[in-house]
Amino acid sequence: MSSEDRFVEALGALLSDGPPLVLGPGDDAAILAREAGLLAATTDMLVEGVDFLPGEDPERLGRRAVAVNLSDLAAMGARPEFFLLAIGFESRRGPDYPLAVARGAIARGADFGARLAGGDLSDAPQTVITVALWGRPAGEPLRRKGAAPGDLVYVSGHPGEAAGGLRLARRLEAFAEHGSLPTPHFPELPLEAERRLLAAYRDPAPRIGLGIALAEERLASAAIDVSDGMGLDAARLARASGVRVVFERELLPLSTTLRELAATEDLDPLALFLSGGDDYELLFTVPPAAAPRLEERASRLDVPVTRIGRVEEGSGAVLADGGARIDVSTLGHDHFAEARR
Amino acid sequence: MSSEDRFVEALGALLSDGPPLVLGPGDDAAILAREAGLLAATTDMLVEGVDFLPGEDPERLGRRAVAVNLSDLAAMGARPEFFLLAIGFESRRGPDYPLAVARGAIARGADFGARLAGGDLSDAPQTVITVALWGRPAGEPLRRKGAAPGDLVYVSGHPGEAAGGLRLARRLEAFAEHGSLPTPHFPELPLEAERRLLAAYRDPAPRIGLGIALAEERLASAAIDVSDGMGLDAARLARASGVRVVFERELLPLSTTLRELAATEDLDPLALFLSGGDDYELLFTVPPAAAPRLEERASRLDVPVTRIGRVEEGSGAVLADGGARIDVSTLGHDHFAEARR
Repeated sequence: MSSEDRFVEALGALLSDGPPLVLGPGDDAAILAREAGLLAATTDMLVEGVDFLPGEDPERLGRRAVAVNLSDLAAMGARPEFFLLAIGFESRRGPDYPLAVARGAIARGADFGARLAGGDLSDAPQTVITVALWGRPAGEPLRRKGAAPGDLVYVSGHPGEAAGGLRLARRLEAFAEHGSLPTPHFPELPLEAERRLLAAYRDPAPRIGLGIALAEERLASAAIDVSDGMGLDAARLARASGVRVVFERELLPLSTTLRELAATEDLDPLALFLSGGDDYELLFTVPPAAAPRLEERASRLDVPVTRIGRVEEGSGAVLADGGARIDVSTLGHDHFAEARR
Repeated sequence: MSSEDRFVEALGALLSDGPPLVLGPGDDAAILAREAGLLAATTDMLVEGVDFLPGEDPERLGRRAVAVNLSDLAAMGARPEFFLLAIGFESRRGPDYPLAVARGAIARGADFGARLAGGDLSDAPQTVITVALWGRPAGEPLRRKGAAPGDLVYVSGHPGEAAGGLRLARRLEAFAEHGSLPTPHFPELPLEAERRLLAAYRDPAPRIGLGIALAEERLASAAIDVSDGMGLDAARLARASGVRVVFERELLPLSTTLRELAATEDLDPLALFLSGGDDYELLFTVPPAAAPRLEERASRLDVPVTRIGRVEEGSGAVLADGGARIDVSTLGHDHFAEARR
């Protein structure tokens, strides 16, 4: 038996069985049963040193790789069903490494009803994880297109915290490299803030429940998941809808945690909020008449949502700050123009 | 507009629109319409320097990435429908590079009815391409499990030629590095053999039509696609079925081309055949009563198939050569135990 075959056997022990997965990992393809209807499908590739820090814990990586894909389905208002998992890694790490990635991926998928159907392993000079995920839209799929002038702009959660967490994670990595991890890690930052920021970066919470609520009752006119930065992703929604997205400075949910970090690091919390990226929150637009119902559903789901602005005629994404208007359309990570970070 | 968004626009020009693809690349997920029924899904990751040679032409890479996934569906007897394409690449190569990968992938998918539904781009230190592909089984899905003692063993095409092509491609790469590409490239090898071997490696022909024929009429009792080597993959089928696969030395289709290469390179054509890998041929077992019908259908599809042995009680894959029996169960690439090549 090749070591790849032994991996598949070990993987089998992690899986739960039952329909509609007719045939899981271990053959040339997985076989699933599906009812008729729409299917929402997405894929995301995470590369070591680009999309995550070198030496990241493999189980956490598996969780995160599934979570960023789940966030794409959340933005379409879809219920996750199945995913495929391809792992490239240095073979000298041994089979426990991809097994830990798979364990994390399976657990995070299970949190949202998504099952591992199959996958692939390849040797690679650094870790690369690609997830392909699909599911069923809970209603008319949410799109980036559809926002109309007069709609209200909402965001879930607290953008910017993940970017703060990345800063801390990088620092921890540098400490670890020099063998000198201080205790507490960041003496000037409350321990609770450190924990919360690191979790926002390392283990994002995809907004599946919120996305389903938005689609089920058609509460949102348009939606996007915020992965590259609030400015850039708002501009994408604006372009797809043929409108302008206006953020109002005084409405932005700059969390206490983000402000605490910004204070200790001499950073601008607004910059982290607008351009940080890795948030995996939903940015969406709501017709005013649907706003009370939206806030009620979000509150029942225990998902924080904040009205942060409005949709106008025009183009791009701007920040209204008192009388000033600042173009924020390019704030975020352009994967292409440069190495991501 | 970010350069990733410009990429999506350029990609749009390559795509044809229409049902059942409700929403293609450019939103957070693709939306497709599906009838009820089984779905066969697979994924494969190709890594530069591991699964393909550095500096490979990007359009050819896109074709190959889709083809190796198509081969997995062929082994299940499924009709391809849609695929997702994730590309990691050095951003300094610019957007034409992933666009060329996508062009090749879209063209090769179209050859077999598979449409690009969506994808992802990431910066990466070397090129990594992951395809996730799904489709609809044409009948009861073919599996690795199901071969019974007394069944005949068949293989499509000419295993070993792709491994020969890889040797030539490596040589060409070394020539190119030293700026000294000779003409003709391999003076001792007929030009037609060079062309055929390189094509077998670079642009494999997935056996979709054959797989569908096998599943539609239940002509095969078990099937696997040969990607890692005839020995290793035969042993996988044998283990899944709880039987022994016996190759008969005198039946193996060692092609004239393979023999020509072996003669000029002082290689054993049998070793290339049994352990070469990258063949993307179908290895399958056929109850004797179904053999005439199988050969008729394959002939009508113009796909060469050869009976190469039989299924016995026992385990593993062996080569019967005169009176001798040689275990070939481990002949091929174990991705895990070492860098692939």
